Amino acid sequence: MGENQTSSRKLDHIRICVEEDVESEYTGLEDVMLLHNSLPELDLADIITEVRFLGSKLSAPLLIASMTGGHPDTKDINRNLAMAVEETGIGMGVGSQRAAIEDKSLEDTFSIVREHAGNAFIYANIGIPQIIKHGVEYAEKAVEMIDADALAIHLNYMQEVVQPEGDVYARNGYSAIENVVKEIKVPVIVKETGGGISNRVARKLRNCGVEAVDVGGAGGTSWTAVEFYRTKDDIGKRIAIDFWDWGIPTSFSIIECAEILPVIATGGLRSGLDVAKCIALGAEIGSSALPFLHAAMRSSDEVVKEINYFIKGLKVAMFLTGSRRVKDLRDCRIVVSGKLKEYIEVTGIDVVKFCESRNKGGFL
Amino acid sequence: MGENQTSSRKLDHIRICVEEDVESEYTGLEDVMLLHNSLPELDLADIITEVRFLGSKLSAPLLIASMTGGHPDTKDINRNLAMAVEETGIGMGVGSQRAAIEDKSLEDTFSIVREHAGNAFIYANIGIPQIIKHGVEYAEKAVEMIDADALAIHLNYMQEVVQPEGDVYARNGYSAIENVVKEIKVPVIVKETGGGISNRVARKLRNCGVEAVDVGGAGGTSWTAVEFYRTKDDIGKRIAIDFWDWGIPTSFSIIECAEILPVIATGGLRSGLDVAKCIALGAEIGSSALPFLHAAMRSSDEVVKEINYFIKGLKVAMFLTGSRRVKDLRDCRIVVSGKLKEYIEVTGIDVVKFCESRNKGGFL
Amino acid sequence: MGENQTSSRKLDHIRICVEEDVESEYTGLEDVMLLHNSLPELDLADIITEVRFLGSKLSAPLLIASMTGGHPDTKDINRNLAMAVEETGIGMGVGSQRAAIEDKSLEDTFSIVREHAGNAFIYANIGIPQIIKHGVEYAEKAVEMIDADALAIHLNYMQEVVQPEGDVYARNGYSAIENVVKEIKVPVIVKETGGGISNRVARKLRNCGVEAVDVGGAGGTSWTAVEFYRTKDDIGKRIAIDFWDWGIPTSFSIIECAEILPVIATGGLRSGLDVAKCIALGAEIGSSALPFLHAAMRSSDEVVKEINYFIKGLKVAMFLTGSRRVKDLRDCRIVVSGKLKEYIEVTGIDVVKFCESRNKGGFL
Amino acid sequence: MGENQTSSRKLDHIRICVEEDVESEYTGLEDVMLLHNSLPELDLADIITEVRFLGSKLSAPLLIASMTGGHPDTKDINRNLAMAVEETGIGMGVGSQRAAIEDKSLEDTFSIVREHAGNAFIYANIGIPQIIKHGVEYAEKAVEMIDADALAIHLNYMQEVVQPEGDVYARNGYSAIENVVKEIKVPVIVKETGGGISNRVARKLRNCGVEAVDVGGAGGTSWTAVEFYRTKDDIGKRIAIDFWDWGIPTSFSIIECAEILPVIATGGLRSGLDVAKCIALGAEIGSSALPFLHAAMRSSDEVVKEINYFIKGLKVAMFLTGSRRVKDLRDCRIVVSGKLKEYIEVTGIDVVKFCESRNKGGFL
Ligand SMILES: Cc1cc2nc3c(=O)[nH]c(=O)nc-3n(C[C@H](O)[C@H](O)[C@H](O)COP(=O)(O)O)c2cc1C
Ligand SMILES: Cc1cc2nc3c(=O)[nH]c(=O)nc-3n(C[C@H](O)[C@H](O)[C@H](O)COP(=O)(O)O)c2cc1C
Ligand SMILES: Cc1cc2nc3c(=O)[nH]c(=O)nc-3n(C[C@H](O)[C@H](O)[C@H](O)COP(=O)(O)O)c2cc1C
Ligand SMILES: Cc1cc2nc3c(=O)[nH]c(=O)nc-3n(C[C@H](O)[C@H](O)[C@H](O)COP(=O)(O)O)c2cc1C
Repeated sequence: MGENQTSSRKLDHIRICVEEDVESEYTGLEDVMLLHNSLPELDLADIITEVRFLGSKLSAPLLIASMTGGHPDTKDINRNLAMAVEETGIGMGVGSQRAAIEDKSLEDTFSIVREHAGNAFIYANIGIPQIIKHGVEYAEKAVEMIDADALAIHLNYMQEVVQPEGDVYARNGYSAIENVVKEIKVPVIVKETGGGISNRVARKLRNCGVEAVDVGGAGGTSWTAVEFYRTKDDIGKRIAIDFWDWGIPTSFSIIECAEILPVIATGGLRSGLDVAKCIALGAEIGSSALPFLHAAMRSSDEVVKEINYFIKGLKVAMFLTGSRRVKDLRDCRIVVSGKLKEYIEVTGIDVVKFCESRNKGGFL
Repeated sequence: MGENQTSSRKLDHIRICVEEDVESEYTGLEDVMLLHNSLPELDLADIITEVRFLGSKLSAPLLIASMTGGHPDTKDINRNLAMAVEETGIGMGVGSQRAAIEDKSLEDTFSIVREHAGNAFIYANIGIPQIIKHGVEYAEKAVEMIDADALAIHLNYMQEVVQPEGDVYARNGYSAIENVVKEIKVPVIVKETGGGISNRVARKLRNCGVEAVDVGGAGGTSWTAVEFYRTKDDIGKRIAIDFWDWGIPTSFSIIECAEILPVIATGGLRSGLDVAKCIALGAEIGSSALPFLHAAMRSSDEVVKEINYFIKGLKVAMFLTGSRRVKDLRDCRIVVSGKLKEYIEVTGIDVVKFCESRNKGGFL
Repeated sequence: MGENQTSSRKLDHIRICVEEDVESEYTGLEDVMLLHNSLPELDLADIITEVRFLGSKLSAPLLIASMTGGHPDTKDINRNLAMAVEETGIGMGVGSQRAAIEDKSLEDTFSIVREHAGNAFIYANIGIPQIIKHGVEYAEKAVEMIDADALAIHLNYMQEVVQPEGDVYARNGYSAIENVVKEIKVPVIVKETGGGISNRVARKLRNCGVEAVDVGGAGGTSWTAVEFYRTKDDIGKRIAIDFWDWGIPTSFSIIECAEILPVIATGGLRSGLDVAKCIALGAEIGSSALPFLHAAMRSSDEVVKEINYFIKGLKVAMFLTGSRRVKDLRDCRIVVSGKLKEYIEVTGIDVVKFCESRNKGGFL
Repeated sequence: MGENQTSSRKLDHIRICVEEDVESEYTGLEDVMLLHNSLPELDLADIITEVRFLGSKLSAPLLIASMTGGHPDTKDINRNLAMAVEETGIGMGVGSQRAAIEDKSLEDTFSIVREHAGNAFIYANIGIPQIIKHGVEYAEKAVEMIDADALAIHLNYMQEVVQPEGDVYARNGYSAIENVVKEIKVPVIVKETGGGISNRVARKLRNCGVEAVDVGGAGGTSWTAVEFYRTKDDIGKRIAIDFWDWGIPTSFSIIECAEILPVIATGGLRSGLDVAKCIALGAEIGSSALPFLHAAMRSSDEVVKEINYFIKGLKVAMFLTGSRRVKDLRDCRIVVSGKLKEYIEVTGIDVVKFCESRNKGGFL
């Protein structure tokens, strides 16, 4: 597949994500209730949202998830994201850097991020198929291009397999990741993009030396949905519909991975309350893509506003659960119901202990 | 924040509560079935709805929950409520007295209650932020102003935190309450206003010497909903929507607190059947605000009618469960289902024993 | 209350039942699946629907439930029911005979039943308030009037209590029933009319010598619904709505009573499949009112048709579960779900054993 | 019943199936989630969909379920199905051959299948009533007529019993099957047609020497639904509605039978994802009728397209669960919820173990 294709597909994706309904329905966060603490023993001003993550400091446990770059028209989006991230002290990822690795003329659509976010936590991004094919070379180029603090290798077979031109080879994935981990100087995150990461996969990734997972669970932007709009093929469309909601919902995936590796929660987080719920379930950080795309297409101010909305919601949830620090959310009692409770039961987790606290561990 | 603001906000609140949809959806009472007793072994005339509560006698286990006063236009409302309460022998609370404590000219909007309800159980009302700031002084003034039988300190951080001008300090809350309990002559009730009270909070309040809790659970008037209509700020509106249904549903909160302290159940009670269900779950008294506001804006007769509707429904439920006295409802078998059953399960309560009776205790 | 009132109220009831929506929603039968037997080892012709009940033979386990008589205009209805019952070999009850006991001129509206159903199983009907007030006298008169094979004493406090003119005394109910059982020559059935009978009540009735219960569970005709249409009083209407769905659903009530006394299942049975489900749950007989009222207002042929529809459905269910005799349905495996499964769980019944068979007993 | 009737009824059925809504609602497959494997350790090209079934090789675990033949107008349908099956390497069944056994002039509507599918796995089809009546004779004729690789005896009492002219004798069914198994040279499959097969029935069939069951569960084409459209009789129509959804849902039935005999899953499979779910639950093969009827009425190319759609979906599911071979799907973790979870619980299956793997066995 030529670079032009990779690059122009990027634009397609953005247009579809902005114009069409591309979300799947269930994150499981709707089945989580954080238990209200009516007399929290702290002032709102006491709340500390700062966290450390992979050696960096974030003003709040929030990342803008990998989205774009790789086509000239995406440069402004990345600039707006970067400016806002720098201003608010959170972090962000860039979209897959493959196009720019293969065509240097596109590099500035990524490097603009570091230009406008000199201090922020920025992570590079490259797909697992490229890592399998090109190994450490691509990984290093991606990191260098934006002077990244970490590298995210994304797993997106769900999308590849419904894409007519998809890269549908996954063999040797773990050893390829292991190699990158050994050679590269920054921490490696492995990141799903809508399918979620299971306990078994998380264990294998830990054994490869991966330092965090971004669960990328079902419930938010669905890449089979995006491909539904792109494909012209009749069978392709029907397959895309059948697999629209495929994947481990974000809430399930957090529980699957929380005791294995530090977890970034992505997939359908649409508010600071969602971030708080993810952290209460066991994640370290919440992350979101789609809402920030909408904002970034307007201005960096809009992105700042969206970030502030997320942080405000997180703070409200922390205040109303009496959580001074972010990790205190994990000691907050929760009530799970519906499908999430069913998942916990069939997985053999002790639901009573789980609801009491996710800090004591040993629930999986 | 100046008094004028407190006072005029009161009117805003009333207007919004009367004109807009301000309720949240789930009390959990819809998931409670009182088991029908087809041959009750008593006559309807045998039923005794009278109860004693904090040393006072009530003709029925029903209180009109704290609502208003503090603005000249609310005086009529309080008069209508007071006349009806006196006539029917139940009790009532007044709204937060802060405005009148800070501006004596507003006192009559509260004292009118005792004027028209010389014998009724009346409780004073002041917010926890004022107690933290002004301690016993405000508490005593509130009680004196209406010659109250008890004082309710309300917890409303859910509202404060979504209010731009909110009092978002909660530190030293328990010690402030403990001080008031020690100094003041009347019993102290701690009262939520839509967020519900958890087991942990109830235990701490008991340790402070508090004599009863009013659970103020989710499912009725939602103060984040009210603030949604008030705020002009875009982020504020989105936060208010996200937290619209926040809080421990009334039914859950009753179960959380029933073995710790005497419970007044508020939050979404809309009928005598609801009151009966709350008592069956473990509450001593049911209480409601919104339906009585509608009535009080018309006349005291309308309030009486509403009270009679509640008492009639309670009596029917008592008759059809064979409950001669109010507390017999707690021995009535119940069937719980849906989300309430899920909550009971994840909390580690023995659901079979719980459904059999809530009088034997030890279920939490 | 005068006789005229009793009599004219009868007409009101019939009109409302025919013209308005008077049913409550949930019988729980929708949550029962009879396990299909794809190779049943019998021919449809082998199926024996005959049963013996209280010493009488019925061509099928089906009774038309007590409905009417007591007003001149109801005579035709009772005649049509009687002719159809006689023709098809099932049984029926008459409506409350109070009006005719108190006004002999109305007797023929009941006695017409025995006239046209010389051999059928017919049961008399009188309300518990009358039994408490008038004892054996009314019971004997009711039985004599139609040469009844059994007497049903109905419990209908749910209706009485929402009726402005209702008989709301229930004290001494059990001893009154016990007296009737001792004095009267026919077996005594106790019958609910929409509220369902609990295990505790069934035990007490057994101790009084009662020979069967008709559970009259929630899910079919709701008498609070009927009173909703009758009452002009505002509070009355609201109470009727609140209690519209009150009562133990038919399926729950069958399970409550099946190990205590022979059970007639009434309340929302609308097909032979419903009858089969009730029997599978533990009932001896299914019974229904409302669908037969519609038919009887047209002709006895329409009633025969409706009976045949019920019997055909029962036979199909028996065939497809491989049940040669009616009681074999109780050995048929079932799957319960939804609210019915929840009820079984909270009641402490072993749901696995219960689903395997209801014949082995000991599940309550 | 004469042959003409059998033959013309066939056309009725096809017309109704194509024009009307004949499906029942719940297969239970909607309550199965295959756990996503985000890094599958294989390439899409590594996936092997080939399976062996009853001694034959299939390119994928997919059969077109028995549908038609027996009326001159059905010949084209069978030809189109046969050509597509031959081209794609899967297998198919023919519809009931009774009409052609009783009227030789109709034989070509069946034999055309073998003509156009010289190498494919083809199974003959005859109803249990004919086997009971005519024994091995009909069975042998059916197999010979199409040179079948296997014989399916279908159980369809659900349909027969709602059909006015139905064959409603089932006595001696097992011994009749046992006889056929002994005498006939090809393997015998017993096949339901919408009612599902229970564990008890599967055990008995295994004892008769049957080599596989086709569960024909509820959730797809409903034959009571089809008869609803055919019958003119009022009671017949009501019975058909009552029993429209009767039967063991496909997913339940697979679980019932999977440890007893090799399972073909039919009933509401509408995609390759459905096939994958059935196999994950324990089936060997997925099979479907209705979607292929629609295609076959157009052309063999349309049937090929539909087959390819199914196989593509299966492959995607295999890839995304990391299943190299079809049977690996049974080791894939699943999450069950809703009614399917409830069924598993009431059946006494250990739901945690079941979700972990269906290969280890011993769960029933
Ligand atoms: C327009 C767009 C482009 C994306 N591109 C990438 C990408 O290149 N690399 C990647 O790892 N994830 C990519 N993602 C996935 C996101 O990082 C994220 O995992 C996913 O969208 C779920 O989060 P959401 O529901 O908040 O959108 C993209 C998402 C969007 C909306
Ligand atoms: C108009 C209005 C004003 C209120 N003001 C107060 C108040 O000043 N102090 C207080 O403790 N609760 C206040 N409440 C809360 C009520 O006491 C009660 O806890 C809450 O409304 C839930 O009950 P409901 O669903 O029956 O309305 C107010 C409620 C309403 C509707
Ligand atoms: C019009 C009508 C009149 C009834 N009258 C009586 C009655 O007099 N005595 C009685 O025991 N039940 C009476 N019932 C109750 C029925 O016997 C039965 O318990 C109830 O209707 C539930 O069954 P269904 O849902 O099939 O109608 C009456 C029901 C109807 C519809
Ligand atoms: C038009 C049509 C005709 C059928 N005829 C037969 C038949 O003759 N013999 C048989 O065993 N099953 C027959 N079936 C049942 C199917 O084999 C299958 O079990 C059932 O349709 C469920 O699958 P589906 O939901 O994919 O349609 C027929 C189905 C259809 C749609």
